[in-house]
Amino acid sequence: MSNLFTGKREYFPGIGRIPFEGVGSDNPLAYKHYDATRKIGDKTMAEHLRFAVCYWHSFCNSGGDPFGPGTRRFPWDEHDTATTRADARMDAAFEFFTKLDVPYYCFHDIDMAPDAEDVGEYEKNLRRMVAMAKERQEATGIKVLWGTANLFSHPRYMNGAATNPDFAVVARAAVQVKAALEATVELGGSSYVFWGGREGYSSLHNTQMKRELEHFARFLEMARDYGRSIGFNGNFLIEPKPMEPMKHQYDFDSSTVVGFLKQHGLDKDFKLNIEANHATLAGHTFEHDLQVASDHGLLGSVDANRGNAQNGWDTDQFPTDLYDTVGAMLVVLRQGGLAPGGLNFDAKVRRESTDAEDLFLAHIGGMDTFARGLEVAHGLLTQSPLEHQRAKRYVSFEAGAGSDFVQGKLGFADLRDYAARNGEPVQLSGKQERYENLINQYLSR
Amino acid sequence: MSNLFTGKREYFPGIGRIPFEGVGSDNPLAYKHYDATRKIGDKTMAEHLRFAVCYWHSFCNSGGDPFGPGTRRFPWDEHDTATTRADARMDAAFEFFTKLDVPYYCFHDIDMAPDAEDVGEYEKNLRRMVAMAKERQEATGIKVLWGTANLFSHPRYMNGAATNPDFAVVARAAVQVKAALEATVELGGSSYVFWGGREGYSSLHNTQMKRELEHFARFLEMARDYGRSIGFNGNFLIEPKPMEPMKHQYDFDSSTVVGFLKQHGLDKDFKLNIEANHATLAGHTFEHDLQVASDHGLLGSVDANRGNAQNGWDTDQFPTDLYDTVGAMLVVLRQGGLAPGGLNFDAKVRRESTDAEDLFLAHIGGMDTFARGLEVAHGLLTQSPLEHQRAKRYVSFEAGAGSDFVQGKLGFADLRDYAARNGEPVQLSGKQERYENLINQYLSR
Amino acid sequence: MSNLFTGKREYFPGIGRIPFEGVGSDNPLAYKHYDATRKIGDKTMAEHLRFAVCYWHSFCNSGGDPFGPGTRRFPWDEHDTATTRADARMDAAFEFFTKLDVPYYCFHDIDMAPDAEDVGEYEKNLRRMVAMAKERQEATGIKVLWGTANLFSHPRYMNGAATNPDFAVVARAAVQVKAALEATVELGGSSYVFWGGREGYSSLHNTQMKRELEHFARFLEMARDYGRSIGFNGNFLIEPKPMEPMKHQYDFDSSTVVGFLKQHGLDKDFKLNIEANHATLAGHTFEHDLQVASDHGLLGSVDANRGNAQNGWDTDQFPTDLYDTVGAMLVVLRQGGLAPGGLNFDAKVRRESTDAEDLFLAHIGGMDTFARGLEVAHGLLTQSPLEHQRAKRYVSFEAGAGSDFVQGKLGFADLRDYAARNGEPVQLSGKQERYENLINQYLSR
Amino acid sequence: MSNLFTGKREYFPGIGRIPFEGVGSDNPLAYKHYDATRKIGDKTMAEHLRFAVCYWHSFCNSGGDPFGPGTRRFPWDEHDTATTRADARMDAAFEFFTKLDVPYYCFHDIDMAPDAEDVGEYEKNLRRMVAMAKERQEATGIKVLWGTANLFSHPRYMNGAATNPDFAVVARAAVQVKAALEATVELGGSSYVFWGGREGYSSLHNTQMKRELEHFARFLEMARDYGRSIGFNGNFLIEPKPMEPMKHQYDFDSSTVVGFLKQHGLDKDFKLNIEANHATLAGHTFEHDLQVASDHGLLGSVDANRGNAQNGWDTDQFPTDLYDTVGAMLVVLRQGGLAPGGLNFDAKVRRESTDAEDLFLAHIGGMDTFARGLEVAHGLLTQSPLEHQRAKRYVSFEAGAGSDFVQGKLGFADLRDYAARNGEPVQLSGKQERYENLINQYLSR
Repeated sequence: MSNLFTGKREYFPGIGRIPFEGVGSDNPLAYKHYDATRKIGDKTMAEHLRFAVCYWHSFCNSGGDPFGPGTRRFPWDEHDTATTRADARMDAAFEFFTKLDVPYYCFHDIDMAPDAEDVGEYEKNLRRMVAMAKERQEATGIKVLWGTANLFSHPRYMNGAATNPDFAVVARAAVQVKAALEATVELGGSSYVFWGGREGYSSLHNTQMKRELEHFARFLEMARDYGRSIGFNGNFLIEPKPMEPMKHQYDFDSSTVVGFLKQHGLDKDFKLNIEANHATLAGHTFEHDLQVASDHGLLGSVDANRGNAQNGWDTDQFPTDLYDTVGAMLVVLRQGGLAPGGLNFDAKVRRESTDAEDLFLAHIGGMDTFARGLEVAHGLLTQSPLEHQRAKRYVSFEAGAGSDFVQGKLGFADLRDYAARNGEPVQLSGKQERYENLINQYLSR
Repeated sequence: MSNLFTGKREYFPGIGRIPFEGVGSDNPLAYKHYDATRKIGDKTMAEHLRFAVCYWHSFCNSGGDPFGPGTRRFPWDEHDTATTRADARMDAAFEFFTKLDVPYYCFHDIDMAPDAEDVGEYEKNLRRMVAMAKERQEATGIKVLWGTANLFSHPRYMNGAATNPDFAVVARAAVQVKAALEATVELGGSSYVFWGGREGYSSLHNTQMKRELEHFARFLEMARDYGRSIGFNGNFLIEPKPMEPMKHQYDFDSSTVVGFLKQHGLDKDFKLNIEANHATLAGHTFEHDLQVASDHGLLGSVDANRGNAQNGWDTDQFPTDLYDTVGAMLVVLRQGGLAPGGLNFDAKVRRESTDAEDLFLAHIGGMDTFARGLEVAHGLLTQSPLEHQRAKRYVSFEAGAGSDFVQGKLGFADLRDYAARNGEPVQLSGKQERYENLINQYLSR
Repeated sequence: MSNLFTGKREYFPGIGRIPFEGVGSDNPLAYKHYDATRKIGDKTMAEHLRFAVCYWHSFCNSGGDPFGPGTRRFPWDEHDTATTRADARMDAAFEFFTKLDVPYYCFHDIDMAPDAEDVGEYEKNLRRMVAMAKERQEATGIKVLWGTANLFSHPRYMNGAATNPDFAVVARAAVQVKAALEATVELGGSSYVFWGGREGYSSLHNTQMKRELEHFARFLEMARDYGRSIGFNGNFLIEPKPMEPMKHQYDFDSSTVVGFLKQHGLDKDFKLNIEANHATLAGHTFEHDLQVASDHGLLGSVDANRGNAQNGWDTDQFPTDLYDTVGAMLVVLRQGGLAPGGLNFDAKVRRESTDAEDLFLAHIGGMDTFARGLEVAHGLLTQSPLEHQRAKRYVSFEAGAGSDFVQGKLGFADLRDYAARNGEPVQLSGKQERYENLINQYLSR
Repeated sequence: MSNLFTGKREYFPGIGRIPFEGVGSDNPLAYKHYDATRKIGDKTMAEHLRFAVCYWHSFCNSGGDPFGPGTRRFPWDEHDTATTRADARMDAAFEFFTKLDVPYYCFHDIDMAPDAEDVGEYEKNLRRMVAMAKERQEATGIKVLWGTANLFSHPRYMNGAATNPDFAVVARAAVQVKAALEATVELGGSSYVFWGGREGYSSLHNTQMKRELEHFARFLEMARDYGRSIGFNGNFLIEPKPMEPMKHQYDFDSSTVVGFLKQHGLDKDFKLNIEANHATLAGHTFEHDLQVASDHGLLGSVDANRGNAQNGWDTDQFPTDLYDTVGAMLVVLRQGGLAPGGLNFDAKVRRESTDAEDLFLAHIGGMDTFARGLEVAHGLLTQSPLEHQRAKRYVSFEAGAGSDFVQGKLGFADLRDYAARNGEPVQLSGKQERYENLINQYLSR
């Protein structure tokens, strides 16, 4: 296969479009579980899962960590200028999306286009690359899931972007959000994400937290107003993370963000983008943070990855734990799906994974793990006693005094008298082990 | 000293009222820093710190842990019946409060009075002990800081109290809250606390989290309405904790609770009681969770203890870290004080600390550490450049475009143009190390 | 089924011996994967897995936690005296072992027999119960996997047992170890375990760690000598745990214990008993600590449970994570089996699991998860490219300069010259994602 | 002050040599506690503390983190070539050491000299810079505390250096260790450090841990032999760290490294270099890991920094916690000092600390915190009841049966009889709170 787009270089030679072969196949470069067209309930796997590849980890991040530089030599980085590197990177990206057969991708402004300190040059660079991306999208049918702006890498953002103590930096951050919103609209993205990597503090001693959060709310309002003014009809999404790079980040977890959005009247336009590894860094399971967002009607999209339970930083590994994907898909199926959001692989191959095929293996592994999670979750919801048993625990609130309680018809004196008449409540086992066994049974059916 | 109250037994023989001796004294049973009458700014140390002893750890908890029973043989537990034990315990408690010279105490319903499954008997037991406590308070001048109900120890609450899936348990929980509210009013307590030890889940698989949280809000509304109806004018307080005993607790941290209170319109009547060790279990510093609550005008009271940074459970140690107490008093002084709340030692001596004097040593250490923290924090706020330097970081928002931004007079296009005109922002060091050095200098002045 | 042993009471009525039904069965009280007689390679599942039930969690622990007492009312605890309760408990235990069809059990001295402060009485109590257990073992064919002494619950051990600063307590601890060794020999146990629950410190300030560790080594030598003198030919086992109940425990993890045993010349007689949840509290995976022990030829037995990755204490949950059991069985199969050790369920049902059947469900779930783990690990080792790919990474040490290096034939100057001649090494991907995908494929075959 | 060395550029203009001014001074660029010549006991502060500045964080690390590049523009990096940059960096380093008035520094090979893939070029670069450093040392009296080789940054080491599965990489690592040993000898360094940043694994699935550890031991033997052959008489030091960058690192903590050294007979030549933040990542206090090393006679040197208790990665902050420094100095004073090791500030200013003076503020803060820790620890050991109270706990082992036990004169039957005669041991409080209060009293004297 020669390069689809320019007729020139092929960046992932020797790897064709990835077939579905089913479990038992010996080809590690084939899907085992993920069959885009297979129906699970009333939707295809592709419609349920809405997979996206992220531009940053896959095409920009060569594997650096705090103790060493990148290990992967990307052929697209061998070009001479920032412009030709950006073009080559886009060719590589669309070649990858196409071969992997994934319907969506996500991007930051400066993943796609060369950064520049000069505002005009920055904007021009981005517009040029957006035009090219638009062509590639039309040629391939691949779409943007969401766009965003990188407000955390440039040194100017070291003390925060929207929450920077210096207004000059806040204004400079708006340049990028404005441009990235325009790019997202131009490319048909259905969501726009804010991950507040530097929105937080390193030290409480030099910080007025309340003031910074008020600035943050103001900034988000302005982003919303601008987005709506240029025809963006999708969801704005906040992506929680508790820490790293900052000692504390303001968007700590689902619950914190939900509270913040409601406090500032932003919950009509903003939802949440939940990342697995961010949830675990906050002391929650992935499933928990998904459920909290979903319970408020605010689960907008998902960053599908995982952390390492023994390491206290964001490892952004590809999702390979079936318990995580079953748990996630239970939440997603219960809320009727993720659209217009999706499952974005905000994940990176390990620093030691330096073969070009590793990027394929990692994505295929992640997609298969979620496809299997979908199958199992669907089975649990439609064939197992899971939902019935869970609901049965709450039956006392469906009628009588319990129902009156829910409707606010009782006072404490009524409850007291009810309890006095009723006698000691009957002990009811929580039966956690039964639920856990059930899930394992469906995992090995 | 013979027993103050009954003329009979003395429970802490050989220990008189604790003198203030000042640093350098060799008497470990004397305050070094805490001098109740000493002025710090315009208030005495006692007025600033408002110390309370907790009934449960000090007079009920004999030192059991998951791997062994209690180690301390309390002389008040040697009496024959639940009634005489409760009486003796109250004598011991007031003897301790008096000797320690502490102005407040806190209690659960069943710390003070014998529990009973029969509602009438439970209520009668509590009323009897409340009457006795009222006499003791009048005799000594010692007051209740806050009261609460224990909704986590009895097996009936194993699946939750207000959030139990069974309405019968919810109603039974109301019995205790109603009675404990009445006790708090009768004893002149200025706050009433909810710590939701079992309000959470052990497994998400068997739980409808959203439903449980709605029940929780309903229950709190009813508590508020009942409290107001019987003349309780103080603050209702929620005490956040992320986990333990439950795998996840709903009142995870300050931010989660603030969001919940605002969502349900409870933030007019409810504030927060922040515990140091609960904040650290949630991945925050003590100071952080205090600041979050304070920033919302919702810091009502403090549970003064500490955890162990290497151990992942609630160790409830006495507060002995000066960095914690300086940090806490900075927040408290900045908000103008804690009243009508205070600093409650929700702390226990180690299981291996089995001498009667250890209870005194532990409280004296905690009080001195907070007294020293108060001195240092006051010095930092009134004599050091701390506040000025911190405020100076935000000066760009005080006038011009920065001020317009704060007031909502600008849009994204304005910000973009401002940034384009302004050029790359000047880099401004966060100077964290300078702040840290400053604090250490004040600590060793 | 009436009680097998006494003809009197049945403690688990309505539950017969547990059948194997295979995946797809709707009976939650049946094994799905575990079929004792099924061959995996050259051994039966029963021979590979060597399951044991623990006496303490299953028949003594009624579900207390630091915030409340037990929730389960054991029928065997309703008897009048300590003696009749111990008898009834043993009937219940053997009824459970029989119905569950498990070949082994493990015990502490005071699980089985009533404790007493008087040494003679304590010894007499234990001898009486050991005689009864011996009869039950002969009647049922059920055997002891290992015995141990509880040196952590009684308040006398609060500052340590063998490492207590007071020699009187060290001597008192020897009473129990001596008796428990005798009991283990009498009951045919093949291993004897030391879990040092209180061997550690609460505060380094009051502790001479070096001295305490020397006492510990001396104590273990004496235990070994005594055990050998009474005919104990099995393994002594140390069970590592990093903390809880103590702030720090001396047997922190596999690596620490291996070093300690070798330093004191104890590694000929002592091996390790690795518990999953202890490994994770130490910042390791279960598999890691197993591998460390196995690499030193010191993996003696396994406590099969799991922790909760979000909670920082020992939750002792039943093992239900297939990744854990696959990982564990890979280590066990690679070292050729666990015998004379086994897989002991040092696990407890949740405090909220109060039905008698929950104890069955939990054990069945744990056994099935390990049986499935065995199948998958066996498949990976015998059918997949796992072992070959792993070995291939080290091929450069099999011959030539690499082999010379291993054999100590080279010096640094040789290496330097080899490197200078050889040029920059070829980059070799670690291919972690390929390994992870492989495991998931075998999990869903 | 013009540049001391070249007469050309001054890299830290406006900052002179740092004076001692004492507490109360308002000059943040002056020592408050650290007075090099002041006697504490029989040594000066400088002799006790033996401070070193590290070359890497202070002169090479411009503040990059996983989410963004460096923020500090070092003037020495503005030169045109690798060679002139290295020269300018060395001028800046010695200017800094001189102004700070610190007696030692530490370095990696490629901090000081430009790296090169060609072995000959790499060696030549290093020799050139070592010659220059030697001149600077002679001119200023500043000495090397220890040297080391960076075996973790270059991509070739991604799968390990001495433990790499590929022998070619092992040999290449030897090139650097050989050269760095030669450099250390040439510059008179008294210790040589191994920090095994990549010696560990990312995934246990692709790793033969036992084999890698054997290679590691072989490599260290060869390093020792080579070092001794070229006249290195100092200590080889292993620096433990549990994880990061690898998922698991082999030199997990003090205890693991001590066991490894003894197993391989390396404990005659190797000691430990303990880093505070590495200890805390391993679940220990700084003081604990120091004490473990010291108890084995293997505490060789210290990396003085601190972590953040809420963040799970190596933050390498400057040591500003007085509890840490008191705890560390207690261990150091008890073992009679650190020489020939010292206190190396393996610490970096925050990414947001971008002023040149911040590097001074951070080091001054660290030095003052340790100087104060020394004063307090000395006071505790020489004036307070600390040592006496601690020793008194163990008095039962000083004579009689306790002493016989220690000397191995007793068997288990003797202990049993002793305990039976002795009756229930008397309960002895651990009095942790008394010790904690004592430390706080000395902190605010």
